[in-house]
Amino acid sequence: MGTGIFEAEKRRALERLHNEGADDDIAELIELLNGFDDYFTTSSCSGRVILICIPEIGAKEEAEFIAKWHREVSKNEVLKAMGMWKDPDGELWLMSQSPILHVSCVSMEKAKQLLNLAIESGFKYSGIKAITMKRVMVEIMSTERMDVPVGRDGVIFCSEPYLDFIISKANFMLERGKEKLRRFYCGLEELK
Amino acid sequence: MGTGIFEAEKRRALERLHNEGADDDIAELIELLNGFDDYFTTSSCSGRVILICIPEIGAKEEAEFIAKWHREVSKNEVLKAMGMWKDPDGELWLMSQSPILHVSCVSMEKAKQLLNLAIESGFKYSGIKAITMKRVMVEIMSTERMDVPVGRDGVIFCSEPYLDFIISKANFMLERGKEKLRRFYCGLEELK
Repeated sequence: MGTGIFEAEKRRALERLHNEGADDDIAELIELLNGFDDYFTTSSCSGRVILICIPEIGAKEEAEFIAKWHREVSKNEVLKAMGMWKDPDGELWLMSQSPILHVSCVSMEKAKQLLNLAIESGFKYSGIKAITMKRVMVEIMSTERMDVPVGRDGVIFCSEPYLDFIISKANFMLERGKEKLRRFYCGLEELK
Repeated sequence: MGTGIFEAEKRRALERLHNEGADDDIAELIELLNGFDDYFTTSSCSGRVILICIPEIGAKEEAEFIAKWHREVSKNEVLKAMGMWKDPDGELWLMSQSPILHVSCVSMEKAKQLLNLAIESGFKYSGIKAITMKRVMVEIMSTERMDVPVGRDGVIFCSEPYLDFIISKANFMLERGKEKLRRFYCGLEELK
C-alpha cells in the first residue's frame, strides 16, 4: 500500500479532528491511537443515549435527533427533551448506542492486530469494513444496545415507571461501553 | 491459503448443515452460496423475533430463550409465551434480530467481493471478522434491530397497546431483513 498516501490522509484526518474535536470520554484513546504510525481515526463516539424521531416509513436517514447525551441521563432530562418533540408524523425512540470508532490501518496485518485487540477488549461487533489499495478500515463496536419506541404521532405511550426502567438500562449499557473503552486503552498501551 | 484445507473444512460444514438444517427463509440462499467453490456457510439465521430472559447482571451468555419465531408473530403468541416465563430473578426482553450469516471465504479477494455485495444489498453491519491462514470469515448482518425490555422479576410492565405497537415494529423489521436476503440472493446469482 502507498505509505505516502496513507500519511497524507492521516494528516487531513488529524486536522479535521483538531477542528471538530471528540467526546471527552474517548479523546485520550483517540490520541493514543493516532500516536501509532500505522493507524489513524476517522470518526468516533464514546457511546450515547439518544432521543430520536423516525418517520413512520422506517427511513433512518430522515431521523431527527431530539436530544443526545454522551453521559448518564436522568428521567427529568429525558422528559424535558420529550416535551420538545413536535413532529406529529413520526415515531419517537429512546436508544442506547455502543461506542463506535473507525480506524484506518496502513496494512491488513495492522488491521488484524487492532481487530483482535478490540474483540478481546469486549468490542464483539468489530470488523474490517472496507479494503482499498490505500488502507484497511476497521470499525470497532460492542453489542450493548437498546432501541425502544416510546411514542408515536405526538403521543408518548410509555409509563413513568417503564421510562425509569429503560433509562436505568440505557445508563447501565453506556457505562459498560465506557468500561470497554478503558480496557481497549490499556491493551493499546501494551502494544505501544 | 491452503485450498485443500479449505475444501476439507467446507465438506465438514456441509455435513453439519445437512444434519442440522437451516431456516426455510434462508435455505435457498445458503445453497446458492455453498454452490460457489470459494465460499461456504458456517452458520445462519433468517432473522427472528425472540422473547428472552436475561439475568439482572446483564450477562447475555446466561440468557434463556422463552420463545423464538423466524416469522411474523401475533400478540396472542407473544402473550402465551410470556405466560411461560417463570424465572423471578431476571429481565424479560422482546427482540427483533437481523438475519445473520457467517461465510468462510477462500481468499481476501473473495471476502471483499462478498462483503461489497452484502453491503450493497442492505446488510450494512457486515464485516470481515477473522482472518487466518486457512480462510477469511465474513459476517453478514443488517442494522434492523429492536431490543425492548418488557418485564422484570416476574412482572410484565408493558401495556397491551404498547405490546401491539412493538410487535408490529418487530414484524416490520423482520420483513425488511427478509427483503434484504432476497436482494442479496439476486446479487449472488449475477455473480455466478
